[in-house]
Amino acid sequence: MSLDEPHKKPHERLSRWLAEDMAAVNWTIRARMASEHAPRIPEVTAHLVEAGGKRLRPLLTLAAARLCGYEGTHHIRLAATVEFIHTATLLHDDVVDESAQRRGRPTANLLWDNKSSVLVGDYLFARAFQLMVETESLRVLDILADASATIAEGEVLQLTAAQDLATTEETYLKVVRGKTAALFAAATEVGGVIAGAPDAQVKALRRYGDALGIAFQMVDDYLDYGGAGDGIGKNIGDDFREGKLTLPVIRAIAAADADERAFWQRTIAEGRRDAEDLGRARAILARHDALSQTRGAALEWAGQARAALCVLPEHPLRRMLDDLAEYVVARVV
Amino acid sequence: MSLDEPHKKPHERLSRWLAEDMAAVNWTIRARMASEHAPRIPEVTAHLVEAGGKRLRPLLTLAAARLCGYEGTHHIRLAATVEFIHTATLLHDDVVDESAQRRGRPTANLLWDNKSSVLVGDYLFARAFQLMVETESLRVLDILADASATIAEGEVLQLTAAQDLATTEETYLKVVRGKTAALFAAATEVGGVIAGAPDAQVKALRRYGDALGIAFQMVDDYLDYGGAGDGIGKNIGDDFREGKLTLPVIRAIAAADADERAFWQRTIAEGRRDAEDLGRARAILARHDALSQTRGAALEWAGQARAALCVLPEHPLRRMLDDLAEYVVARVV
Repeated sequence: MSLDEPHKKPHERLSRWLAEDMAAVNWTIRARMASEHAPRIPEVTAHLVEAGGKRLRPLLTLAAARLCGYEGTHHIRLAATVEFIHTATLLHDDVVDESAQRRGRPTANLLWDNKSSVLVGDYLFARAFQLMVETESLRVLDILADASATIAEGEVLQLTAAQDLATTEETYLKVVRGKTAALFAAATEVGGVIAGAPDAQVKALRRYGDALGIAFQMVDDYLDYGGAGDGIGKNIGDDFREGKLTLPVIRAIAAADADERAFWQRTIAEGRRDAEDLGRARAILARHDALSQTRGAALEWAGQARAALCVLPEHPLRRMLDDLAEYVVARVV
Repeated sequence: MSLDEPHKKPHERLSRWLAEDMAAVNWTIRARMASEHAPRIPEVTAHLVEAGGKRLRPLLTLAAARLCGYEGTHHIRLAATVEFIHTATLLHDDVVDESAQRRGRPTANLLWDNKSSVLVGDYLFARAFQLMVETESLRVLDILADASATIAEGEVLQLTAAQDLATTEETYLKVVRGKTAALFAAATEVGGVIAGAPDAQVKALRRYGDALGIAFQMVDDYLDYGGAGDGIGKNIGDDFREGKLTLPVIRAIAAADADERAFWQRTIAEGRRDAEDLGRARAILARHDALSQTRGAALEWAGQARAALCVLPEHPLRRMLDDLAEYVVARVV
């Protein structure tokens, strides 16, 4: 395999480099989804797992472990663990957000129902838990337990902060860590831990995952007001309709005049919106440069992710991780 | 404290004997519910945790550990873990069942919303996970991971089996293990494991918890058609309205004539019910002795629970556990 495939996207190069490992991860996911007692479970999860997500999180775990020279098999279990946790949070998010589509397909809770989404999500959490226990590493368990708490806390915080115009950037960052960066950081960190990497490298992997996750989520929040809906499988304006205080809006509110403040008060705080309001919101964001500020913040985090990599061993995977950090922001042009 | 308080119920005697431990468990629960980032969390959970549940599951863990001579502090963490898992499943159940009340008070999802119930449930699971990792016992983690999977699988199975008149007693037993007995069994087993009890005793504790949980759930299913609504904080007829195939109904269907079969087909399978149907269902159950058969089955499981205790050390707690197994069925007279 050629190391240089500049025409390929970084996660595609990671996928190719780690193809054998990913095949084992997919096999593990399929095997562990199966439920003898409740055949409906694989039916619900297959819908999500097969939906052609990029499998970014398991790739991060595999890449971190391999980059640190790991030769065992526990990284497969951990990669599957991380994907199960991710899928479980998507299932629970679907209940929560009442979002009409996910990854461009109808959400599980529209195809089945809220009940299945909650319970199958719980099942996936439990399966993830079993898989990680099999690694017999208390340090790994500790990291994943903390990540789970940060994720759940971030989700609740997002719920509480919704519609609250006084939401600070600090709170926004906590929400972002909860919904995205905590699992990215755990994904890379456990890869290093299972490989027995030195502490400085484990810390660097964690910092990389955390910063990458933050950049990734900021871009997502940017795209929700600016990207092309079909390209990312997400409806434009979801965050606006759900009254989420994302960075573009926080910045725009900080710079708002009285008219604009009344607009945000009505549309976000009071949730009274009509068909033209999304367009007006986008115009206000543009006027205050809030979208390019968000892109700038994402770029900064991506830079921190790339900087963290310097203590890690020279390795083709390291370059792919570096490119990945660049790419998650570059996709927004 | 007197060992003989025959006027007190067994769980009350357990509570008194273990009062100091339970105070530590309550303190741990309160401390771990707290969330710096998301203050709404304790607000939601306090509602459930303070609702005056009997705290049966943490008592089981404490009793098992103390009965096996444990002198450390990990049993406190495990008892809190077990209560957190229980509370989390209640929160998720409330979303699922759309039940109007729980423990005689409005359910969390009526006071707040489905979103909070799902996410705060996830938070409690994560907190439970952190607590159990602190025990640094991989065996404990293994037991609780398996229990979590059985619980989730049982909940999904219950959902799939609902309205299905062909549900067998075997399926019913799996559902019962999932919704109740798996956590009871894990609660007693981890108590023995953390105490370093010999394998035969650990197995006996597990068998006790499993059989006690099955007896307990069968009685619950009996009471749903026959008990007094206010005494147990549960609406009579909930299972009927939700089309659950519990043991009384399974037995009555097995013995049904053509008219009765049509009745079950309409009310359970097709979910078309009117105000008089619960009364008619109860009359049919009575005609076929289905309720006393259910009580008989519960008695049998309670007997198995009591029998399991014989390999455990002579101890006042052992007698209370024995009395408890008798009591969970005796409450149905």
